[in-house]
Amino acid sequence: MAHSPYEQLEQEWKRLHAFRGALALLRWDAAVMMPRGSAELRGEQLAALETEYHTLLTAPKVARLLDRAQANASALDEWQTANLHEMRRQRDHAIATPASLISRLAKVIALAEVRWFEARSSNNFAVFAPHLQDVVQLVRDKAALLGQAFNLSPYDALAEEFTPGLRSADIDTLFKAYQRRLPIMIREAIAAQESRPVLPIQGRFAPSKQRAFITDVMKSFGFPFDRGRLDESNHPFTEGVPGDVRITTRLDGANPFSGLLASMHEVGHAMYSFGLPAAWHNQPVGQDRGMALEESQALLLEMILCRSREFVLWLRPLLEKHFAVSGPEWEADNLYRLLTRVQRGSIRVDADELTYTSHIMLRYDLEQRLLGGEIAVRDLPEAWNDAAERRLGLRPQNDAEGCMQDIHWAVGAFGYFPSYAAGAAIAAQLHEAMRRDITDLDAQVVRGEFKPLFEWLRTQLYSHGSRYPTGELLVQATGKPLGATAALRYLEHKYLGEITPSSAAA
Amino acid sequence: MAHSPYEQLEQEWKRLHAFRGALALLRWDAAVMMPRGSAELRGEQLAALETEYHTLLTAPKVARLLDRAQANASALDEWQTANLHEMRRQRDHAIATPASLISRLAKVIALAEVRWFEARSSNNFAVFAPHLQDVVQLVRDKAALLGQAFNLSPYDALAEEFTPGLRSADIDTLFKAYQRRLPIMIREAIAAQESRPVLPIQGRFAPSKQRAFITDVMKSFGFPFDRGRLDESNHPFTEGVPGDVRITTRLDGANPFSGLLASMHEVGHAMYSFGLPAAWHNQPVGQDRGMALEESQALLLEMILCRSREFVLWLRPLLEKHFAVSGPEWEADNLYRLLTRVQRGSIRVDADELTYTSHIMLRYDLEQRLLGGEIAVRDLPEAWNDAAERRLGLRPQNDAEGCMQDIHWAVGAFGYFPSYAAGAAIAAQLHEAMRRDITDLDAQVVRGEFKPLFEWLRTQLYSHGSRYPTGELLVQATGKPLGATAALRYLEHKYLGEITPSSAAA
Repeated sequence: MAHSPYEQLEQEWKRLHAFRGALALLRWDAAVMMPRGSAELRGEQLAALETEYHTLLTAPKVARLLDRAQANASALDEWQTANLHEMRRQRDHAIATPASLISRLAKVIALAEVRWFEARSSNNFAVFAPHLQDVVQLVRDKAALLGQAFNLSPYDALAEEFTPGLRSADIDTLFKAYQRRLPIMIREAIAAQESRPVLPIQGRFAPSKQRAFITDVMKSFGFPFDRGRLDESNHPFTEGVPGDVRITTRLDGANPFSGLLASMHEVGHAMYSFGLPAAWHNQPVGQDRGMALEESQALLLEMILCRSREFVLWLRPLLEKHFAVSGPEWEADNLYRLLTRVQRGSIRVDADELTYTSHIMLRYDLEQRLLGGEIAVRDLPEAWNDAAERRLGLRPQNDAEGCMQDIHWAVGAFGYFPSYAAGAAIAAQLHEAMRRDITDLDAQVVRGEFKPLFEWLRTQLYSHGSRYPTGELLVQATGKPLGATAALRYLEHKYLGEITPSSAAA
Repeated sequence: MAHSPYEQLEQEWKRLHAFRGALALLRWDAAVMMPRGSAELRGEQLAALETEYHTLLTAPKVARLLDRAQANASALDEWQTANLHEMRRQRDHAIATPASLISRLAKVIALAEVRWFEARSSNNFAVFAPHLQDVVQLVRDKAALLGQAFNLSPYDALAEEFTPGLRSADIDTLFKAYQRRLPIMIREAIAAQESRPVLPIQGRFAPSKQRAFITDVMKSFGFPFDRGRLDESNHPFTEGVPGDVRITTRLDGANPFSGLLASMHEVGHAMYSFGLPAAWHNQPVGQDRGMALEESQALLLEMILCRSREFVLWLRPLLEKHFAVSGPEWEADNLYRLLTRVQRGSIRVDADELTYTSHIMLRYDLEQRLLGGEIAVRDLPEAWNDAAERRLGLRPQNDAEGCMQDIHWAVGAFGYFPSYAAGAAIAAQLHEAMRRDITDLDAQVVRGEFKPLFEWLRTQLYSHGSRYPTGELLVQATGKPLGATAALRYLEHKYLGEITPSSAAA
């Protein structure tokens, strides 16, 4: 049987996909199951597989097949054409970074991740610093190479890997729009809250009960547990490939919402994976369309859906069922106030919707300066604390609550944070469009009917995989390009009462 | 830096070792953690990685380096020479089997394993049969190819992969010696037992308590939990590479010894891994010396150590601590009788030491006939039941307790069972030598001092890796080649009281 060049490429990517799945499992296991003393060994395994993945992707054979398939591109249908485009994109990115760098980076990251956790637990930045220094140095090399290859600034080249097409210029515009309104909104919301006191929740919530509670919510969303898992880890994450998607959460014995919302964030990622076009699972076009859209799904669930009055009304009996709670503090109204409480704080993952973007701006600014060499790794704690004071209005108690709170830099994910900011804006845009298309949405949520919501997302987003560029997909689903308008309108409405769209966008 | 051909080979095997570790994790996860619906995807991942492993191992570059290193073999020290020999052995085995066959086998096995579990749970052989048929067909092809390449019978070629140098002729001799004595010993032991009644143990033993109990025993043995894990699975197994060794067990809520002994079997495998020469961990010579020695370590702990009076004396307070048990049935003497009770039964893993070998003979005979085409897969249940009646003295209640009780054939491990029989003989030989060298051994076990025992095993066995051929290693450690004499002497002494060595070997 002679296969066309395009068909041979599909075979190559089928193999690459199997490697991606194996790598995902090695990473998941390292964070959830692996004995602590095995980190170095795991680092070697990850490095070997990533190097091999890189070698396969950048092989001369693939380059030849890409050229031959391109020459015959007229024979391909729309999906195949998009797939070929994504194949070339992946390969062009890979070839810009030498295998030796990939391998060194993988090893350095595996160690840095373990040391980050130790350093955070003991609040000792000195334990983490030399490893972060190694990571920064190699990421800097990688950014320079990618930047040269794609004619982008080093930082944009890193961001491009996470969200194709997203540039700092877009993020700067977005942040400028936020910056004009958010500080005022935060002050006003905090002032308005004073007349609406919140009763705190109290008690101990056993981990086993919390897991059962979260599992129940996930089942209501249609999370397919025969192709996914829920576990616990230090930093919640989603890992895997569409046929086996695993999320983790972090539980707080004193507050069942902490673990629930962390889980919902990851469920957002997971539902996107589950909804990707099944026929293209092992091909590039079958993958998600970048991290901004990924984060939009995470934030849509964590922030917009799960912190809505309607969701809280549905959730209330479930809380009673799992934790046997009652009393005025467990009334839906109080819980909604609790979940929408605006409060200046140090920790990003605990932040409310209004202050969240400030956390991203802080990191966006610092990681650019760290990579650019303006800040030395040893000076990071001080620089972080200064920035926190300016942006968040408070100084972290210590580095564990400061520059070591997030895992991203330890694992080399520089250029990732802008995807959260873009994601938040996209989530609000999608939410607006969804409410336009599903007239009964709010009532459905109160009744626990989440199927139409996820079906809308599947139709508009999930099922397209990487068929269209990010911007095009967004316009198709919402009618609008990326912007802060919908997000600001949503936040104004939710936190400051109903106002006219024009004033929200002012 | 120019590296010698031998040094380049070490680099190649370092990479292969990382692949082996990744493959081990993919298999462990499939049995312990993976969502049930992900089996097909996992099969593709395993197939892709195994194919790649095979491709790397059989690359022309490796062949050239092997030849060039061989030409310069005089420059190598003893360990390096042995390492080069093992490299060639692995490569010669790999090249005898085409990559396409390896890949097909991996896929077929991944599915067969899942179906085996379902079929066993529902006692429905028809669910498993077509998948077993696929496995048998491909294993038959593989055996034929290996046999041609190494001038061995197809069955011996399969057995060689598990235990280098082990031939059916050796096994036949071993079984003949057993067969002369065992049936009589079983009858006599059962008759003798009648005058020594055993009080049954009763109660429910919570899984969490059983896990803590087993973990305590493992800690006393020096199992390094920072480089290993204990979990549960349908079929207990050991998986991993020396820096990350994971064992599983299966718990019985009504009997804490079931899970303990299953764990001890796997701990035997694990301690062998942990004791392998650290400097050679990622090289062939740093690997264990085949499955007969592996099983000898498993059976030495499960059967000889843990079913000894001395061990039970040490264990008794630990049982009291974890399960708060008391009463005459929990006295050491009764527990020892319970653990050494000889009883005809259907299930191999529940078998006592005396009847165990009959289970192996049954499988040894059937798998040869199955591969040879004398028995069709569809006729296996009947053939099994007939053989069970003849060899074990009873007919299984159903196929779940019959031909579907073991995982081995589902995962293609034909030719493995002889390693259990050889392992049992070797365990007795090692035990005899150990008692000769450590005069205080019995008293140490009563006191829970297991360090000298494992130190002896480390010195005599673990630390040599694959430096010597199986037979040579055995002679060095025990002074004797493989034979049934020590095993029969041990069994006579334990089950029929002390008798003279000559009559035991008669």
